[in-house]
Amino acid sequence: MADIASTLPLETASIHHAYGKFRRYVHRTPLLTNKTIDRIASSNAGSGAFKARGAFHAVTHLIEVMGLDELRRRGLVTHSSGNHAQALALAASTFDIPAHIVMPEISTPSKIAGTRAYTELIRFSGSTSQEREEVVAQVIAETGAVLVPPYDHPDIILGQGTASLELYEQYNSQQAEGGVESTLKVVLAPLGGGGLLSGTAVFFSDKPGTAVIGCEPSYQGGNDGERGLNAVPPTRIETVKTLTIADGLRTPVGAIPWDVFTSGSSTKPKYLEGVYSVPEEEIKEATRLVMERMKVFIEPSAAVPLAVVLYNQKFRRWVYERQQAEGTECWDIVIILSGGNTTIEALIGIFGDVRDADTQRAEGVVASDGSTTVENVAG
Amino acid sequence: MADIASTLPLETASIHHAYGKFRRYVHRTPLLTNKTIDRIASSNAGSGAFKARGAFHAVTHLIEVMGLDELRRRGLVTHSSGNHAQALALAASTFDIPAHIVMPEISTPSKIAGTRAYTELIRFSGSTSQEREEVVAQVIAETGAVLVPPYDHPDIILGQGTASLELYEQYNSQQAEGGVESTLKVVLAPLGGGGLLSGTAVFFSDKPGTAVIGCEPSYQGGNDGERGLNAVPPTRIETVKTLTIADGLRTPVGAIPWDVFTSGSSTKPKYLEGVYSVPEEEIKEATRLVMERMKVFIEPSAAVPLAVVLYNQKFRRWVYERQQAEGTECWDIVIILSGGNTTIEALIGIFGDVRDADTQRAEGVVASDGSTTVENVAG
Repeated sequence: MADIASTLPLETASIHHAYGKFRRYVHRTPLLTNKTIDRIASSNAGSGAFKARGAFHAVTHLIEVMGLDELRRRGLVTHSSGNHAQALALAASTFDIPAHIVMPEISTPSKIAGTRAYTELIRFSGSTSQEREEVVAQVIAETGAVLVPPYDHPDIILGQGTASLELYEQYNSQQAEGGVESTLKVVLAPLGGGGLLSGTAVFFSDKPGTAVIGCEPSYQGGNDGERGLNAVPPTRIETVKTLTIADGLRTPVGAIPWDVFTSGSSTKPKYLEGVYSVPEEEIKEATRLVMERMKVFIEPSAAVPLAVVLYNQKFRRWVYERQQAEGTECWDIVIILSGGNTTIEALIGIFGDVRDADTQRAEGVVASDGSTTVENVAG
Repeated sequence: MADIASTLPLETASIHHAYGKFRRYVHRTPLLTNKTIDRIASSNAGSGAFKARGAFHAVTHLIEVMGLDELRRRGLVTHSSGNHAQALALAASTFDIPAHIVMPEISTPSKIAGTRAYTELIRFSGSTSQEREEVVAQVIAETGAVLVPPYDHPDIILGQGTASLELYEQYNSQQAEGGVESTLKVVLAPLGGGGLLSGTAVFFSDKPGTAVIGCEPSYQGGNDGERGLNAVPPTRIETVKTLTIADGLRTPVGAIPWDVFTSGSSTKPKYLEGVYSVPEEEIKEATRLVMERMKVFIEPSAAVPLAVVLYNQKFRRWVYERQQAEGTECWDIVIILSGGNTTIEALIGIFGDVRDADTQRAEGVVASDGSTTVENVAG
C-alpha cells in the first residue's frame, strides 16, 4: 500500500481530490428515495406490474361515461388472482369508489395482503373461471357494482399499452442522447390473459420495424396462446389448468386480446410476431439471474420473457435467421419485466428443493453468458 | 365496465389518448439497460458495494507513487472475505496488474466466484485475522506484492468517502429541484472494519448539521465498535469472532478508522455521533423489507442500517429527543445500502427455517409501518 506519509489528510477536501482521480472508473451510485426504488422495481403506484395502467384507464373512462357519483354509489367489482385485484382496488380507492374483489382461495398471501391494503371488500372463490364468475355475478346482483374485467376489455388493453408508449419514448431518447440511430427490433412481453401483450401489439402496430413477441410458461399446457396460434386454423383455447410458478400467467387468452393477436394493420401484416414458451426450470433460472445479477426482486411471471430470450431455441433461431438476412449481428431487444409481487417464503417454496448436479451444471452455463445477452442477442 | 361501443378503437393513437387521461396517477416506468440495473442495485462497476471506491483510489494512488511498470511487476495482494477481494481484483485488472487475493475458506461461494471473475490468483486461509495475515505475508515473501488492506488505510477511507460526496450532491440537487431547503440530518452506514463509515464521517466532518451513525450486528459480540466506543475510556476491541448473517461486517474496527471515530474537527465536536447494533432477527426483517417492498436484492449486511432505523429503540429515542428539542417531527435521513453479493441459496439458508407464530406476528407490525419510515422518522 502507498506509504501513509504520502496519503492526504483525512478531511473532506481530500475526498473531493480522491474522487477526481478515479471517478471515471466507477458508476455514480444513485440516491434513491423509497418511492424511487418502488418505481424502479417496476411497480406502479404501489400495485404490482403494469396492471395499474389498465385499471386506472378503465376507471377514468367509467367516470367520464357514468359520472363519479353514480360510480361511487354502485361500486366496482372484478375477479383476479392478484395483480389486477390490487390495481383495481388502488385505482378505485384513489377516487373513493368502493371496490369488490373476488380472489381465488389459492391466491398467494402477499397478493391478498396487497389487495387488502386498498379495500376491505374481498370475497374468495374457487379457481376456475366459472367459479370466479359466479361470485362476481352474485356481487353484481347484491350491489349493482360495475364489472372491470382483468384483461378482456379495450380500456384495459389501451391502458396497458401505455407501458409501451413510455418504453418507446425512453428508447428513442436514449438513442438520441447516445447519438445512435438504430431500430428497436423486438419487444417481448409476458402472455397470460393477454391485456399487456395485446396493448403492446396495438402500440407497435404502426411501427413495422418492431416485432412484438408473447412469452408463456409451457408447464401443464400453460402455453395456450402458443398452441392456439400455431393450430391450423388458429383456434383460441378457452380453458387452461396449470399450476406453473408463473402464477400471473395461468389464465387463458381473452377473446379481445385474441382478436388483436390474429389481426394486422395497414403498416404491419400481423400485430403479433409469435408466441414462445419456456419450462419451469428455465423460468427459475431467469428469475435467479434477474435477482442475483440485476439485483431486482421479481415474481417468476416477470422472468418469463427473459427466459425466452436466453433459452428458447426456436426464438433464438428466429432472431439468428433475421439477423443473417439483414447482415447484422446485434439487435436492440426490449423485455417488459412485469410483476414484483412475491415474498421470500414464496421464493423458498420455488427454490428450496435439493438441486441435483445436472441443474447446477446447467447454471454454470447460465452464469457464463447470462449477463451479456439480455439486451443484444448476438447471431 | 364501460360499454365497448364507447371505447376507442384498438390503435396506436388511442393509447396516446388513454395516456393523457391517467398519466398523473401512475409512475413513469423506467427503461433500464442491464448496466443501469446493475448500477441501481448499488454495485460499482461489477463489484459488490462501495468497496470498489476504496480499491480504485488505493490503486490509482499506488500507480502515482510507484509507477505502473513496477506495480505490474510486483503485483498487489489483499485479504478479504468478499467484497474488498472482488473490488481489488477488479481495480487491478483494469490496469493489468496481477492481484493475489487471500480469502477465508468459509467465504460465500458467490463472493469467491465474483473474485475469480477478475483474478486467478486466489489463496485460501483460516478465518481469523492472524491466519489471513500469515498467508498474506507468505505471498509478499514469494512475489514482492504490495499489500492493499481492506479498510485500515487512509487511501481506502478517502476512496470510500466519495460515496458520501455523491450522495450529498444528489441530496442537494433533489432539494433544489423540489424547491425545498432542508438539512440532511442523519447518515447511517454499516460498520465492519470501518472503511466506509470512517470515510463517511470524514466527508461530513465539515458539515456540523449532519450526524453520522454506524450500524453493526450484535450477534456473538459483532458490535465491537459499539462496545468499544461506549467503554470508559473508549477502547478499541481488536478481536471479534461472530458468525452473524451480516457476513460483510464480521471484522473488528481497524486502527485508523478507530482514530477517526474518536476524533473531531474544527466544525464538528465528534466525527461519529454513535454506533447502534441490531440482532439477527431484525437484520432478517430489514432484509425482507428491502427485498419485498423496495424490490432490491441485497445481502443482509446491507440491511443493517435500515434495521437500526426501524427497530433500534435507542436510536429512535435519540432521534425523537433531538426532534423534540428542535420542534420538528420530520427529518431527512439517508441510509447507505452497501452490498448485493448474495445468492438465492444463501437466502434460503437464512430464511429457510420454520418460523413460529410470534415471528409472523412481528412481521405484521413490520408490514404496517415499514414502507413509510425509511426516510422520515416521525417523532
